[in-house]
Amino acid sequence: MDVREIKDPSFLKNLSVKELEALSEDVRQFLIQTCAKTGGHIGANLGVVELTIALHKHYNSPQDKILWDVGHQSYIHKILTGRGNQFETLRQYKGLCGFPKLRESEHDVWEAGHSSTSLSAAMGMAKARDLMRQNHHIIPVIGDGALTGGMALEALNNIGHDRTNMTIILNDNEMSIAPNVGAMHNMLGRIRMNQGYNKLKVDAEAVLNRLPGGSRIRESADRIKDSLKYLVVDGAFFEELGIRYIGPVNGHNFEELENALQTADSINKPVLIHVVTKKGKGYHPAENDKIGTWHGLGPYKLETGEQIKGQPTGPSWSQFMSDEILSYAKKDKRVVAITPAMPVGSKLTRFQSELPEQFFDVGIAEQHAVTMAAGLAIEGFKPYVAIYSTFLQRAYDQVLHDVDRQNLNVIFGIDRSGLVGADGETHQGVFDVGFLTQFPNMTVSMPKDENEARDLVYTAMQHNKGPFAIRYPRGNGYGVTLNEQKQQLALGSWEKIGSGRDVILLGYGPTVHTLVEASKLLKDKDISATVINARFIKPMDSKMLHEMGQSHTPILIAEEGMLNGGLGSQIATFLIDNGYKNTIKRLGIEDEYIEHGNVNQILEDLKLAPQSIVDEVHKMIRLK
Amino acid sequence: MDVREIKDPSFLKNLSVKELEALSEDVRQFLIQTCAKTGGHIGANLGVVELTIALHKHYNSPQDKILWDVGHQSYIHKILTGRGNQFETLRQYKGLCGFPKLRESEHDVWEAGHSSTSLSAAMGMAKARDLMRQNHHIIPVIGDGALTGGMALEALNNIGHDRTNMTIILNDNEMSIAPNVGAMHNMLGRIRMNQGYNKLKVDAEAVLNRLPGGSRIRESADRIKDSLKYLVVDGAFFEELGIRYIGPVNGHNFEELENALQTADSINKPVLIHVVTKKGKGYHPAENDKIGTWHGLGPYKLETGEQIKGQPTGPSWSQFMSDEILSYAKKDKRVVAITPAMPVGSKLTRFQSELPEQFFDVGIAEQHAVTMAAGLAIEGFKPYVAIYSTFLQRAYDQVLHDVDRQNLNVIFGIDRSGLVGADGETHQGVFDVGFLTQFPNMTVSMPKDENEARDLVYTAMQHNKGPFAIRYPRGNGYGVTLNEQKQQLALGSWEKIGSGRDVILLGYGPTVHTLVEASKLLKDKDISATVINARFIKPMDSKMLHEMGQSHTPILIAEEGMLNGGLGSQIATFLIDNGYKNTIKRLGIEDEYIEHGNVNQILEDLKLAPQSIVDEVHKMIRLK
Repeated sequence: MDVREIKDPSFLKNLSVKELEALSEDVRQFLIQTCAKTGGHIGANLGVVELTIALHKHYNSPQDKILWDVGHQSYIHKILTGRGNQFETLRQYKGLCGFPKLRESEHDVWEAGHSSTSLSAAMGMAKARDLMRQNHHIIPVIGDGALTGGMALEALNNIGHDRTNMTIILNDNEMSIAPNVGAMHNMLGRIRMNQGYNKLKVDAEAVLNRLPGGSRIRESADRIKDSLKYLVVDGAFFEELGIRYIGPVNGHNFEELENALQTADSINKPVLIHVVTKKGKGYHPAENDKIGTWHGLGPYKLETGEQIKGQPTGPSWSQFMSDEILSYAKKDKRVVAITPAMPVGSKLTRFQSELPEQFFDVGIAEQHAVTMAAGLAIEGFKPYVAIYSTFLQRAYDQVLHDVDRQNLNVIFGIDRSGLVGADGETHQGVFDVGFLTQFPNMTVSMPKDENEARDLVYTAMQHNKGPFAIRYPRGNGYGVTLNEQKQQLALGSWEKIGSGRDVILLGYGPTVHTLVEASKLLKDKDISATVINARFIKPMDSKMLHEMGQSHTPILIAEEGMLNGGLGSQIATFLIDNGYKNTIKRLGIEDEYIEHGNVNQILEDLKLAPQSIVDEVHKMIRLK
Repeated sequence: MDVREIKDPSFLKNLSVKELEALSEDVRQFLIQTCAKTGGHIGANLGVVELTIALHKHYNSPQDKILWDVGHQSYIHKILTGRGNQFETLRQYKGLCGFPKLRESEHDVWEAGHSSTSLSAAMGMAKARDLMRQNHHIIPVIGDGALTGGMALEALNNIGHDRTNMTIILNDNEMSIAPNVGAMHNMLGRIRMNQGYNKLKVDAEAVLNRLPGGSRIRESADRIKDSLKYLVVDGAFFEELGIRYIGPVNGHNFEELENALQTADSINKPVLIHVVTKKGKGYHPAENDKIGTWHGLGPYKLETGEQIKGQPTGPSWSQFMSDEILSYAKKDKRVVAITPAMPVGSKLTRFQSELPEQFFDVGIAEQHAVTMAAGLAIEGFKPYVAIYSTFLQRAYDQVLHDVDRQNLNVIFGIDRSGLVGADGETHQGVFDVGFLTQFPNMTVSMPKDENEARDLVYTAMQHNKGPFAIRYPRGNGYGVTLNEQKQQLALGSWEKIGSGRDVILLGYGPTVHTLVEASKLLKDKDISATVINARFIKPMDSKMLHEMGQSHTPILIAEEGMLNGGLGSQIATFLIDNGYKNTIKRLGIEDEYIEHGNVNQILEDLKLAPQSIVDEVHKMIRLK
């Protein structure tokens, strides 16, 4: 069938298993073909085709509430709820979101993007249901990777204690983003592999039943049996937390799935169904991915799965940074790298294979990652925490309370700083400047190109006065020729580019290039601008700021980040604190969340493109 | 012995059990007597007297590293490491810190204050040790309450997988701050209560050993035995995570403790020793505390344990806020209250007993608390999350990603906002203004007195356009007469007090009273001031700000919070954005952490006392 014609999931109720299988095949082909053009989280979605269909057949959405943890695996859900016809716009500007979105459909009951939130949200929804004496189902779907996130474990602990009625679907795909790590993963693996577990239980009961009745031995045997019922089953971990475990279930088999869901319905307390799925199922290139390259990606060639990329201007920022750190780590084993489940995204696989002892992938556990780094630093190590800006939000308190307050020498490589494009609103790296610059001991920096990145890494390695953050954007660098010598940059020193007298254009990171562009356009109109590369966002270059203040030159500050708490607000405050009266214009993100779409398009909307900056300068100078 | 004479723990090595017991008694009496004068976390410390002595006898601190999770139970550790003679200054200005402090002693190897950090830090320290090929012990001591914090669970998952050698002491005192909740607590309870567990294992082996050899049954029996070894033991939860469980051990019995520590030494992988202690042991009033009043407290009468308090000026802020919320919850069951383990601290016990169905204590789990609130709000509920400012930091991403981004009507009652006094640097509520005002949909407010608090709660209850934070300070209100009618305050509206023309003094919360004080002092010197009560920190009162800008009046902004990102910086930015040139002075906390001590004393240091404000105004007016 043409899955673009599906209006809602009601048609599933009458389908036979054969028809469901045929539908799965149609959905799969549709996904493989549309994602080849749009890109997206194809692997995760191919793994949950049958599971999603089974859920929508068994339950009545939206009365029953299906919550997709992280949410990047919700494509089939979107198709079944009438959005197949919008898939050409997936993750594009103003198009279909790659994550659940309340405003897109009543079937999207919870938005996500970050992992491990679904169980807590489900508990809230379940308590609301119970207080209103309603009786619909609440079904959070969470991956085995997301389950290692601390807040999911906090929720399990609370749900099990409270005996909140819900059916948790544990989607165990043996790989979430990167190959999973952690003891819980090992535990799930044991369950999957060891068919003996359940068999053992049956055997044991058989043995014990043969013992003579009435004896003391018999009495013990009965107690053992009771206990076996409880303990010698799969999923003791969950049962210990008060959550009834069902599984493992083959996530590509409709009969097994339906049986498990029916069993769950008959239990009036929290149930976890352990569903085993295969990530990328049905598409050879994705299915054979062993390291996580197929997690989230751009367009690809249908036949081979080869990714279609524009000619990169330079090395990927993540790769460049990771290789820089690796070069120090090779010389000093106290330089170690930590990633919360992003060895591929943060391009640390080379580091991992060359220096496995100095490399730690701690799984989806940002809080633990940061405080583990603090533990290493307090012992004189120089840990490098590679983490996406948006995920660093999860470790706010660990950066503040454990690293910054104890003033420890941890280097934060803040990947995907600024706008990220297709992943959209939950993934924008636009808050970290605001919160990191509040921390008393923190240095915050962002290089304008690879040379400066090298210098900043070098500077951070020498720095022994506390934490040092180096932000870098998503995507590729500029391919600049690398200097022979790295240099240590004076803390807080900014760089002046040009010496125009009419206006100062100030920014950091990729924005510096935009400002240089703008200054060229201005020159054509006889306006001479100085561009300032604020490579240190904290501390600021107070000498240069005083110069700027004394010169009375109008200042335009542009940043790919929130205006509130951004560098612009700090410069404005500095100037007013010191009694300077320059005209200031701050460009960046007002009080709003920025959705998915092409970064250049969004920069234009935010007036952060060269021409809009030129227009602003005209206004400022007229005003002066 | 006089415990004030102890220099270091080495003397413990030669003590007999009898002598250790005598020492315990001395330590206990010393603690009870000194804390009666200074206040402090007496209950938690009385529970770990023997445990701390046993650890320092068995290990060699500081080579072996003992990490105190949260850290408020480190008093005995401080005594044994030579700080008994400083206990009269405990938690006082410039005195001994109530938490471990690196600069106080080489035996303090990790600082804390917030819970659940010790396992991650221990893992970092252990990896540093292993990479340096050293072999000292790493011993994190964590309470059963702290173990439910998500980051501790993230750490367990990683430690178990990595098989990192360390000895985790689980201090199960049946009560951490409030009576513990959560499935893990139930699990520990089952272990403590059910002596049958271990007995069962022995019985089972006996039964199985009697079966005839060689048979198929025998074969199954052997497999069952192997499995029993693994499963039918206490602590299956930990064993499932790859952590060897030892216990339960009586935490007041030196022989049992020493045996357990020796067993742990013989195991070259992560071990958890489950130690059962009695909070408040040896002091009747603390021992009999069933709700958590004796967690952290001020001075008390030695004989009765009755707390010595100054005459309160008004009701406690926490009680006042909780009762206000309760009055709405009684009328509408969609008004619910959530606390992460602070029913006593946040004074929600009345709410809990009157409306148990609408009350949720989720344990030490700030992340879960906030996102559960989001789940309730998305279903049309009006959840009130009562949380200390400093602990809200733990849920930064949940407030941002789950509540604010989805624009949900959650009310945050931010307790202990501003300076907190004796708990010091890890507990100051001085960062929330900076981070909350960055969130696009958030309203942030702080009342100047109880009447305004009532109006703000009323306003928040009517507000259906997103999250609403009401900050309130530690301690007591002013006992003002309550108005008959509550009124809805226009969002962002500020209040003008007085109409002086020489200077504007602006602040929020208790600072408003300081500013009024200062304005009186100024009046005596013929300087007329207008005080502005910025009860909304976000949104700001733009109409009034434009008036202020147009009047050219100098503006002094004072706040009990970080200057960077504070209201002062936002006002400065507003004025400069709009081209106003007022002289601005911002008072608050520069880039530093504020230690423990009397709040008034600290306010003086920060120039936030009335007289310092007067002095600043003089300087500003001279400058004008």
